[in-house]
Amino acid sequence: MDQFKNYIYNILLEPSIKSELEYFVQEFEKNPTAYDFLVDNPQGVQENYKEGYIGLSQRYAKAQQMLKKKFPGNTHLIQFQHQLYELGTFYLNWQAFLPTIQMLGTPEQVKHWQDLTFNYQIRGAYAQTEVGHGSDVQGLQTTAVFENNSFIINTPKASAFKFWPGQLGIFATHSVLQARTTVNGKDIGIQTFVVPIREPKTLKALEGVDVGDIGPKLGFLRADNGYLGLKNVRIDRNNMLMRYTKVDESGQVTTSSKNAIKYGYGSMLNLRVGLVNVFSIFGLFTNNLAYYQVKPLLKTQSIENEAIIFRLLRSYVVQYAQIIANAQVKEMFTRFQNQLKANDKQVNETLQLVHLYSSQMKSIAGWEAVKTSREAMQIAPFGHLNASDLTIIYADNVPFVTYEGDNNVLMQQTAQYLLKQFGKVSGGNAQFTGMASYFNKYTQENNQKASFQNLEEVLERLSYSFCKKTVENFQNNLINGHSIQTSWNELNQCELIKASVLFGYTNIYKQMGAQIKSSGYSLELLKIHKLFGLFLILENRTTIISFGIADFKQVEILAEIDQQFSGNNKLEFLDYLANGVGMYRQRNFINIDWDKLNLKARL
Amino acid sequence: MDQFKNYIYNILLEPSIKSELEYFVQEFEKNPTAYDFLVDNPQGVQENYKEGYIGLSQRYAKAQQMLKKKFPGNTHLIQFQHQLYELGTFYLNWQAFLPTIQMLGTPEQVKHWQDLTFNYQIRGAYAQTEVGHGSDVQGLQTTAVFENNSFIINTPKASAFKFWPGQLGIFATHSVLQARTTVNGKDIGIQTFVVPIREPKTLKALEGVDVGDIGPKLGFLRADNGYLGLKNVRIDRNNMLMRYTKVDESGQVTTSSKNAIKYGYGSMLNLRVGLVNVFSIFGLFTNNLAYYQVKPLLKTQSIENEAIIFRLLRSYVVQYAQIIANAQVKEMFTRFQNQLKANDKQVNETLQLVHLYSSQMKSIAGWEAVKTSREAMQIAPFGHLNASDLTIIYADNVPFVTYEGDNNVLMQQTAQYLLKQFGKVSGGNAQFTGMASYFNKYTQENNQKASFQNLEEVLERLSYSFCKKTVENFQNNLINGHSIQTSWNELNQCELIKASVLFGYTNIYKQMGAQIKSSGYSLELLKIHKLFGLFLILENRTTIISFGIADFKQVEILAEIDQQFSGNNKLEFLDYLANGVGMYRQRNFINIDWDKLNLKARL
Ligand SMILES: Cc1cc2nc3c(=O)[nH]c(=O)nc-3n(C[C@H](O)[C@H](O)[C@H](O)COP(=O)(O)OP(=O)(O)OC[C@H]3O[C@@H](n4cnc5c(N)ncnc54)[C@H](O)[C@@H]3O)c2cc1C
Ligand SMILES: Cc1cc2nc3c(=O)[nH]c(=O)nc-3n(C[C@H](O)[C@H](O)[C@H](O)COP(=O)(O)OP(=O)(O)OC[C@H]3O[C@@H](n4cnc5c(N)ncnc54)[C@H](O)[C@@H]3O)c2cc1C
Repeated sequence: MDQFKNYIYNILLEPSIKSELEYFVQEFEKNPTAYDFLVDNPQGVQENYKEGYIGLSQRYAKAQQMLKKKFPGNTHLIQFQHQLYELGTFYLNWQAFLPTIQMLGTPEQVKHWQDLTFNYQIRGAYAQTEVGHGSDVQGLQTTAVFENNSFIINTPKASAFKFWPGQLGIFATHSVLQARTTVNGKDIGIQTFVVPIREPKTLKALEGVDVGDIGPKLGFLRADNGYLGLKNVRIDRNNMLMRYTKVDESGQVTTSSKNAIKYGYGSMLNLRVGLVNVFSIFGLFTNNLAYYQVKPLLKTQSIENEAIIFRLLRSYVVQYAQIIANAQVKEMFTRFQNQLKANDKQVNETLQLVHLYSSQMKSIAGWEAVKTSREAMQIAPFGHLNASDLTIIYADNVPFVTYEGDNNVLMQQTAQYLLKQFGKVSGGNAQFTGMASYFNKYTQENNQKASFQNLEEVLERLSYSFCKKTVENFQNNLINGHSIQTSWNELNQCELIKASVLFGYTNIYKQMGAQIKSSGYSLELLKIHKLFGLFLILENRTTIISFGIADFKQVEILAEIDQQFSGNNKLEFLDYLANGVGMYRQRNFINIDWDKLNLKARL
Repeated sequence: MDQFKNYIYNILLEPSIKSELEYFVQEFEKNPTAYDFLVDNPQGVQENYKEGYIGLSQRYAKAQQMLKKKFPGNTHLIQFQHQLYELGTFYLNWQAFLPTIQMLGTPEQVKHWQDLTFNYQIRGAYAQTEVGHGSDVQGLQTTAVFENNSFIINTPKASAFKFWPGQLGIFATHSVLQARTTVNGKDIGIQTFVVPIREPKTLKALEGVDVGDIGPKLGFLRADNGYLGLKNVRIDRNNMLMRYTKVDESGQVTTSSKNAIKYGYGSMLNLRVGLVNVFSIFGLFTNNLAYYQVKPLLKTQSIENEAIIFRLLRSYVVQYAQIIANAQVKEMFTRFQNQLKANDKQVNETLQLVHLYSSQMKSIAGWEAVKTSREAMQIAPFGHLNASDLTIIYADNVPFVTYEGDNNVLMQQTAQYLLKQFGKVSGGNAQFTGMASYFNKYTQENNQKASFQNLEEVLERLSYSFCKKTVENFQNNLINGHSIQTSWNELNQCELIKASVLFGYTNIYKQMGAQIKSSGYSLELLKIHKLFGLFLILENRTTIISFGIADFKQVEILAEIDQQFSGNNKLEFLDYLANGVGMYRQRNFINIDWDKLNLKARL
């Protein structure tokens, strides 16, 4: 079991997060009150945030003490969870602000801002979204105009105000910011700038800067999402990130190749790849909270209990599958970076793969996190109460499906990819390629009669058949005279997304298989992999049969889920999966915080 | 349009709610401070509730003033929404406490408690759920023991504490309460009692009563959900509700027939039928909030906008469909009551119909309300902020799927019904009956070749084919030696629920058609009905084709959605649907509360 735990821990605990955490702990221990200034600035700090931040620091310190006693090392998962959950405040500094600079800045710019950030002299936000524009980056209305070796930044109307960025509300001293840029009268597109917004010591807004917290919201209760208006804010020319587009003193503009720019933005997929783990871990934690709360009730043998055990099992397996498959996507991302350095021709294709995999996985992991935490609230006896912590994590999960790319928008990129692939092949000469290349196996046969060899094949056939039918529907609507807009947005959007989701789950299954193979086969991982496949098939069983992919007898293979366990084995395996998570609070029904529930059981 | 509006209003504004509202408004106006006592009791009232209640009263008074200026009559929907949203506190008094007494009490008992309630001398809660037992009523651990012409009530362990009931936390003076009852040493099953718990003037807990609020939660922020422990609380024998089971002074027990008891509980389905409207109206309101927020942005022609318009349209249509179909179920409920009075033999079947329809509709309306308000948060530019009101309604919607019957549990009753129906028919002699009788139309044909005549037929065929395949899967698993528990909870639960949901949507479509027919055909309602059918088919398109119910050419009928509109007509129809809702705050993007957002647009 230890081997398994270590394996999971190593996937979860990325080096960057380890070192960030260590750094923060060191700093905090050296001088715990050093962080007081964050709550002492006179401007704009709301009561609940003050309180929230103080509570956060205190709890963090307490958790650290507890941790040290319990676990000798420093690598336990508890830290990671804590860091995400309680220190969400700093997440965007490391995961959005700094990476943007690292990707889009010149080496000198990177060094400059990195040093300041590593020394905690500045803290940054990532401000792209405006009141009027989110997913549609080309519609941004914030402007940057080159003038006298500087840029003048403006948000010319209310709808151009930056809106939503985390850390912008209270804590950020700087922000990276996208703006439509004009140099010597010429529009040079959307560029990215580092804009100082607050005086680092006092957190006072700089001149021309209108910045503050956007107020109470669902989820992210302790995060300081903010708004930002800029009025003739002058910044140094060099605050424009110039790795791909350069503006010199005279206003001369030089731009790298389009590909270079694409690769630059591609490098930022790092954040999306990382978020898949974040969502999955949130899913695991909510599942654990529910499991430990309901466990004492699961001993009695009743119908509901079997159903509950089964749902908990499904959630664990799905979250683990996501984390393990994501390790494969991370490797792909590293390959992309290496190919980029080596000027390898494959880089284009690798980037497309990372893009598609990560957007599918982000969406699926986001939806699964919402589903898991929703179910956990239902399953845990006190699930809908804040005292259970579940409501808070649930509320934090809900906007996951919106930010870092709205799920429905992201999944439609996969739909577009599928359309292109089928379009290419329908000509008759070409083959399916890339992620869709497994489709080639099934183009020649009559599905009605096919019989499958293994779970992967069932999923592949399901994905192929469903995608094919959906694409054909879409094309038929076009042939019959409907516009692309109508055919896409109205007549087929739902089904295109559904097909993409099936395609995405199949990819996760396949990626997970590849990762298990490359990391050496472990019995536990193979079991999780198999269960994941069986759950997917189970949930699409009627569709599988209606497509003629399998008949009733064949789907008896599904009964294998049950055969994996006998007697109480299922509970043992649940326990095993729960232990793998490394709960930071091993709550159970007995030592629930009755005071918090106002229920003083005097009996 | 007015005709349409009136039609909807009359469905929505039930007489009981109208009179409650009028009563409350009169009382409140006579003496607004008369309600102060509710916040002046020394015991157990938390700060946030005090504040919440004061805010609630103030806002209610303000809304009433505004209302009077704007709308001359008193019947506008605004009141209903307000009553639900701001006065949620009193909802259970009228919709659970009193109806339970009316259904299970003798005529004298009903008169006694009704008088006290109508005069606002007492306020009641409905306390069934315990810490350890929710859906499983037979497992309740609270006890009532007959002794000296009284009952002694106890919650013998922590897990027997009543937990969750609304109004129990602060405001209730009494509660109806289910307990396992023993008379002269004999267990007479679960009985229902009216238990005084607080002194009405001071709201002090009575002796032996341990009662309070369960604390902060997700949603229902202003509702006082509570816990209740009872230690040797003695109540009068006559506080047991004795319509069906009587206990006399000597402990002699007489019980009506089993059927009579079933009918008694059946009468309580009233609450569930009513909740369908509540959910649908919440759905309509969130959709309206999103629509008015995003409307100014919808003028520009872009891909996203078409998608957003389409999603808003779908939400309106689904909510209206639910409300209109539910009117049909209400009529059925009235028929049940009349048949009961007239000793009609049909009463059994009618009760089963009401039970099945209402549980399907409650579940679907609950899920749709969560979905609609979730989408509304995504669509509205400020949707995830509390300032938009959407987060609050969303959070209130989330537990809908749990209380008054957990959705997944309720839908499995339909699954059980379907299994029985198919079991009956598989013998060869019998026919499908009741809700499933339309299945008979399709048993003889080869689906692969069928071609359909109208939308209803497509939905019926889809429902039939999917239910049939799912039931066959289940039966196959049994034949191959799996236990009922494994086959049901593990191998088929997902698909059984999915099939039941399809069956349920089809029923809503059919009920809506019946209601339109019986209320005289109106063009607008027919349009909504048609759109509802098209949306359902659109969302299940690939399944429909894979079952051979329709081919590509036939599903071109779906393009009719588009043909219903040309140019800006879709926006006009949206406006029309939105107006039907009678928004209580016609918010729009311009007069959004910027202060609340902390965004002082100085530009
Ligand atoms: C908690 C939270 C934290 C955030 N943090 C940050 C941050 O740090 N920095 C930052 O810059 N932003 C941040 N955001 C903003 C977030 O990235 C945007 O909200 C997101 O990109 C969506 O943009 P939007 O809100 O403008 O919605 P839109 O993109 O306008 O979408 C609105 C609706 O339209 C639909 N839609 C849009 N395009 C299409 C299409 N092509 N086809 C079909 N449907 C479509 C969407 O599904 C959605 O329902 C945050 C948001 C939240 C909720
Ligand atoms: C906001 C709110 C208000 C409420 N108000 C009241 C009130 O006024 N009065 C009152 O008495 N109660 C009230 N309740 C309690 C509510 O009715 C119960 O929570 C509900 O009946 C579910 O019971 P439970 O919580 O014990 O969960 P359980 O019934 O134990 O269910 C737990 C989980 O098991 C699953 N499950 C249960 N049985 C089965 C099965 N046969 N097959 C498959 N899965 C199953 C469920 O899907 C669920 O996920 C309220 C609850 C909430 C959240």
